[in-house]
Amino acid sequence: MDISSLVQKNSSKIIFVILDGVGGLPINGKTELDAASKPNMDALARKSACGLHIPVSYGITPGSGPGHFGVFGYDPLKYEIGRGVLEALGLGIELEKTDVAVRCNYATIKDGVIVDRRAGRIPTEKNIELTEKLSSQIEEIDEVKIILRPGKEHRFSFVMRFPQNISESQAMVADTDPQKEGRSPLKPLPLMEEAKKVADIAEEFIRRASEILQDEDKANFVLLRGFSSLPDIPSFENKYGLRACSIAIYPMYRGITKLLGMETLSVEGDVKDEIETLKRVYKDYDFLFLHIKKIDSMGEDGNFEGKVKKIEEFDNYLPEILSLSPDVLVLTGDHSTPALLKAHSWHPVPLLIHSPYVLGGTSQSFTERECLKGELGIIPATAIMPLVLANSLRLRKFGA
Amino acid sequence: MDISSLVQKNSSKIIFVILDGVGGLPINGKTELDAASKPNMDALARKSACGLHIPVSYGITPGSGPGHFGVFGYDPLKYEIGRGVLEALGLGIELEKTDVAVRCNYATIKDGVIVDRRAGRIPTEKNIELTEKLSSQIEEIDEVKIILRPGKEHRFSFVMRFPQNISESQAMVADTDPQKEGRSPLKPLPLMEEAKKVADIAEEFIRRASEILQDEDKANFVLLRGFSSLPDIPSFENKYGLRACSIAIYPMYRGITKLLGMETLSVEGDVKDEIETLKRVYKDYDFLFLHIKKIDSMGEDGNFEGKVKKIEEFDNYLPEILSLSPDVLVLTGDHSTPALLKAHSWHPVPLLIHSPYVLGGTSQSFTERECLKGELGIIPATAIMPLVLANSLRLRKFGA
Repeated sequence: MDISSLVQKNSSKIIFVILDGVGGLPINGKTELDAASKPNMDALARKSACGLHIPVSYGITPGSGPGHFGVFGYDPLKYEIGRGVLEALGLGIELEKTDVAVRCNYATIKDGVIVDRRAGRIPTEKNIELTEKLSSQIEEIDEVKIILRPGKEHRFSFVMRFPQNISESQAMVADTDPQKEGRSPLKPLPLMEEAKKVADIAEEFIRRASEILQDEDKANFVLLRGFSSLPDIPSFENKYGLRACSIAIYPMYRGITKLLGMETLSVEGDVKDEIETLKRVYKDYDFLFLHIKKIDSMGEDGNFEGKVKKIEEFDNYLPEILSLSPDVLVLTGDHSTPALLKAHSWHPVPLLIHSPYVLGGTSQSFTERECLKGELGIIPATAIMPLVLANSLRLRKFGA
Repeated sequence: MDISSLVQKNSSKIIFVILDGVGGLPINGKTELDAASKPNMDALARKSACGLHIPVSYGITPGSGPGHFGVFGYDPLKYEIGRGVLEALGLGIELEKTDVAVRCNYATIKDGVIVDRRAGRIPTEKNIELTEKLSSQIEEIDEVKIILRPGKEHRFSFVMRFPQNISESQAMVADTDPQKEGRSPLKPLPLMEEAKKVADIAEEFIRRASEILQDEDKANFVLLRGFSSLPDIPSFENKYGLRACSIAIYPMYRGITKLLGMETLSVEGDVKDEIETLKRVYKDYDFLFLHIKKIDSMGEDGNFEGKVKKIEEFDNYLPEILSLSPDVLVLTGDHSTPALLKAHSWHPVPLLIHSPYVLGGTSQSFTERECLKGELGIIPATAIMPLVLANSLRLRKFGA
């Protein structure tokens, strides 16, 4: 059901913490959450509603986009973020409704054939140099502003900023990457009639870029993938009646929450700086989203001990969050990132909702196995926001 | 979601065991799984992901067709197997895309009125004799080959094999069984325009059969039900990218898996022979389905002790299966068959998934009550295959 019709406003405060990739798997019998010494989280778990959530569906491993969409109550199967958009957000480009974003590689071409799709993974410094060169020489094509931003090694982001808004179908252009070496690059073909304009700009961009790059040894061509515009998505405030802000250090998470219409606060530094920001702006918002990144990074590196330490680090800050006395506090992850797998995974994610209106007393600690015993059970990620609104008494009764 | 788009191939091996009808209900406080001494299954449960699955929906008791479709990830509410097809498969007829299968009864007719719909439940030997007589005298009708196979008592299977493929709508012909004694048999009416040809063949078959049977005391007529052709169903290999085989002794299960495009291996004998086949062909497939029938048969007979013994028998073979070191091993049933009910039932079915990527440590044994404590929770049967693919690392990440 669409819960928007039941939303009522009040003065309650909600703090929603994503411990990115917090769920794990056992190594020598203990998961990262089992191994971590985290007295504050465990004490909170004992008096909270605990459970686990399934980010997308059974067996499905979510990327960061779908992972966050789910916990914020946007069905990730309905709302998809294009690859180009996600890459641009990750590199800190502030996308507008007028933009088409594309994910690009520098590549090596010889006699019209791609001989290296990644241009020998040129160093990032070389990428920065080349991308600045392209930027300065291709500022605009046919009244469309061109924005380029270097990523790591051979990757960069290419955004076309049109004078008017761009629909999702206008951005439907085929990838030019032939996916295998020894083939010719493909043309950026429009997949819908209305995508012709975007395809034309892209083709002209490729032409000019290859001219500028022609004397390069390795990075003498560009391959384009994941053409996409901003998805058409109801804002957090319209959907839930919540003035929301996001506190995140990494650009991608600021970008994702900006898509949902949250106020995205720029924070430099580490968790300490995020907590200080949280305290400073606490009075200004109904819903404060706090994103803790490094737990996931350690999981991705397969660094079990490092992930444990990052969980413990957050635990040290938890009393400061609790001292704000939010009406509802949520602790969960956007997905699991077991160090064992060195990657995101499909496993259900521990979830804790603290409010005055929970049963409590079912889970002895904030771990996967203890959360299994909790009053929330195993629920879809999209069930979290209705529960959060209910716990903040922001949902009216349904029916008489 | 359609997970086919996320499937990636690798060299992992999956063994999927159906303990037919394994779920039970307590008699004197213990279910069949509680009462069985099964140290190998219990040890495996302690280090596996456990849970229960719901074959079709809450309160719905599945037949063997829907039961197997669900655990193999084919929504049993979407893909239905016609009664005629199921009966033919159960009697070992190898159906083709060119076939229409019908479930038949011998019946007693007098003065144009059905006086016994089951012909006094004639002995099976009599059925065999009559069906052979019909077979030899009706080999073909209008270039359509006629295949007859006796079942038990008054039941037999009638298959029309056309020179060309038959669609589902071409097989839509009404039952001729009036469902009550004292009524005239109905005509095999086409329910769709395109089913006229099938209806005509059926009508001619009834006419010829009643001529041949006219001097019979009881079985002097035939009633036709469940006209059906093979359902249009994506193959296991197309859906999951798995080279799959089925190892089953009973024709019906070979038939069901043949519908899904699995290689169906003919096995004679008992569980021992099935395990030997499994070992012999293990290297040739990605996915090996092993069907263990007798647990269900004992449940159907209301033989609690017999069902316990069949569970214990399988437990003795489990180490041989484990010695193959599959990447993923699944133990579950297609439905529950409590001896208490002497029938299939609607109860959720114990489920165990063993792989290197499970939490484990939540269930002390493979029983209904212990599986309830497991990390999988209570899930729809159609969630099993996505989890199996995830645990064999055969699913790519969804979204960036």
